[in-house]
Amino acid sequence: MIRINENYQKLQASYLFADIARRVREFQAQNPGREIIRLGIGDVTRALPPACIAAMHQAVDELASETTFRGYGPEQGYDFLREAIAEHDFRARGAEIAADEVFVSDGAKCDTGNIQEIFAADARVAVPDPVYPVYVDTNVMAGRTGTASDGRYPGLTYLECNAANGYVPRLPDQPVDLIYLCFPNNPTGATASRAQLQAWVDYARAHRALILFDAAYEAFIRDPALPHSIYEIPGAREVAIEFRSYSKTAGFTGVRCAYTVVPKSCLAWDAEGKAVELHALWNRRHTTKFNGVSYPVQRAAAAVYSPAGQIQVRELIDGYLKNAAYIREALGGLGFQCTGGDDSPYIWVNTGRDSWEFFDLLLQRAGVVCTPGAGFGRCGQGHVRISAFNSFDNVRTAMDRISAALK
Amino acid sequence: MIRINENYQKLQASYLFADIARRVREFQAQNPGREIIRLGIGDVTRALPPACIAAMHQAVDELASETTFRGYGPEQGYDFLREAIAEHDFRARGAEIAADEVFVSDGAKCDTGNIQEIFAADARVAVPDPVYPVYVDTNVMAGRTGTASDGRYPGLTYLECNAANGYVPRLPDQPVDLIYLCFPNNPTGATASRAQLQAWVDYARAHRALILFDAAYEAFIRDPALPHSIYEIPGAREVAIEFRSYSKTAGFTGVRCAYTVVPKSCLAWDAEGKAVELHALWNRRHTTKFNGVSYPVQRAAAAVYSPAGQIQVRELIDGYLKNAAYIREALGGLGFQCTGGDDSPYIWVNTGRDSWEFFDLLLQRAGVVCTPGAGFGRCGQGHVRISAFNSFDNVRTAMDRISAALK
Repeated sequence: MIRINENYQKLQASYLFADIARRVREFQAQNPGREIIRLGIGDVTRALPPACIAAMHQAVDELASETTFRGYGPEQGYDFLREAIAEHDFRARGAEIAADEVFVSDGAKCDTGNIQEIFAADARVAVPDPVYPVYVDTNVMAGRTGTASDGRYPGLTYLECNAANGYVPRLPDQPVDLIYLCFPNNPTGATASRAQLQAWVDYARAHRALILFDAAYEAFIRDPALPHSIYEIPGAREVAIEFRSYSKTAGFTGVRCAYTVVPKSCLAWDAEGKAVELHALWNRRHTTKFNGVSYPVQRAAAAVYSPAGQIQVRELIDGYLKNAAYIREALGGLGFQCTGGDDSPYIWVNTGRDSWEFFDLLLQRAGVVCTPGAGFGRCGQGHVRISAFNSFDNVRTAMDRISAALK
Repeated sequence: MIRINENYQKLQASYLFADIARRVREFQAQNPGREIIRLGIGDVTRALPPACIAAMHQAVDELASETTFRGYGPEQGYDFLREAIAEHDFRARGAEIAADEVFVSDGAKCDTGNIQEIFAADARVAVPDPVYPVYVDTNVMAGRTGTASDGRYPGLTYLECNAANGYVPRLPDQPVDLIYLCFPNNPTGATASRAQLQAWVDYARAHRALILFDAAYEAFIRDPALPHSIYEIPGAREVAIEFRSYSKTAGFTGVRCAYTVVPKSCLAWDAEGKAVELHALWNRRHTTKFNGVSYPVQRAAAAVYSPAGQIQVRELIDGYLKNAAYIREALGGLGFQCTGGDDSPYIWVNTGRDSWEFFDLLLQRAGVVCTPGAGFGRCGQGHVRISAFNSFDNVRTAMDRISAALK
């Protein structure tokens, strides 16, 4: 008799976005003429950069002719892209990463979800709270937790992010093996300084732990003092895997390209205490269960690094950052404590009341949709996430309406 | 201390294609003027159908404008593609499959590799021998086997495919829970009749087993008596998951699109014996660890079902089938027993001697590269796989050279 992976039964149904959709639908039904502005979801809205469009068209034309046709590419990605990544995203910032340490993939969600497969079933896992749910759910599916109670899974270590610590978690007070960090953070928009990341790298080295560093929002960093990659931190090459994505950087949410860096010096241990290179393990996983990213998409990603692409991508992000600054200033002006929005597309608002209550308030009185923080974990309670992914006109109208509603 | 998933250490290094590459390299070095014809690898060589090229260009243009831009799509695929699949690939053949039972993905390799995650860790797994290595390796990684000895993993049930059974395996003589079947088969090119598939469906129903049916080469079927989908077999909707791919159908190996069908009536059981819908489990896995296929790629896949696309795809496959028929006839004329090549791009040649010895013979004397069957499992010994993925001119030259070399 075929039996299921029972760990799936531990998963708590995620009603967050379904719940939001239902409330918006009901509001719209009761207020048919009212125009709703959506600042909830983390999806981009602007067109792809022209350099990426041109590169995709050219690559599609190559596939139209037998002489330039390409079939299976290397599972790890084409050299033209891996070289560009290593050079522009790392070596240009003083981080020593080689092209063959880069694994091109179709999404940071996939990679942050799949990476746990190469680790022991009884690894002790630390996740931030509030948290991007994929880190948690994929470890639940793999059997690293008990059954949830009160919104938390026994077996996980929750790293609390709150106003007191500026939404950057403190080092754990119990030993952990695998640590998920995300900066600039989703959902809080918080960033980590060099000193803060250095503390995590030092912790990982001292405890033989491993950091899974999600830098999907790296392109939003404008503060020159902030590190863009964990590999800018001395010692990180031995204890950190980094995830990047073109989704927010270049508007690729519907196009699908990302990458993961596994330095060859990054180690884990087997039962006999023998060190094993994680690069070899991830390479085996990647080549066995993945068949590479679409060739036209890899060409589009490589175009991000062209001189024109660099300018266009910066303009794209600058547009969203202009929105973010506007949102943060408007809400700050209303007396709310906010994090993010400077080097992040997300503004995390300390609402001083229940998440859903504040969500309903914005929806009912201002016709603006945000995301209740409680949906991201216990520490998200009392907060909402407002996203800068919209047009500037919509953002300005939304803030005007919120100001009028709350004054 | 972070420890690895030690099941990875059980994996046997796959030297097959690396070994082939080395021998070809050495031969080329010794015979610098000699032109080598590659009939080894299973990758397509012809240009994408014009309908797919046009659809991709149009979709890329949509992403270039803010008014038609698309970000995240549904993880399961766009309705326009799921509807077309359900209608053309299933309902048109009398197989009742609904659009929301179709999960669009970036590859059948990914799906056949990932599907085992939703089943119990102690599921008893049956795989064909010879076998597509992904079925085996992903179960090894998940801990469902012991350490290999003599090329086989304890814990797996090997379904032997040989000349005696026409390379279609018999029902297992010990109970199994999860059964991987692949028709038209890679590597043997064998096809399964309705009666043969009915026997497997009946077995699965009687034993509450589940069939994982890999139909990646379905488009090569020309014999009207052969089923294209396992859902053409009565009773299959309750006991089978089917995998399809555009890789070989429409030349998408470098473009990446595939899909998996999980009927809502397909069940597995939990520890208390309660039935669970696998559709819900796979949906949870798919939405948690995957973020959808590139929008232009989904448009290209949908174009396969347009009237022009259908004609172009048929012509594409007809070209490879012409090669396959030529290969089969030529080798048959030399006295070799062959399977496949009628409704499959692969010809499985019973060489009557060691796989690698025959490989070397073809390389040294004819300058033709094939794939030694021993690389696919113990039952592959004594065979080679010859692929029809090349130009007709190259195929004809290769067969002429082989004839001359072996006569």
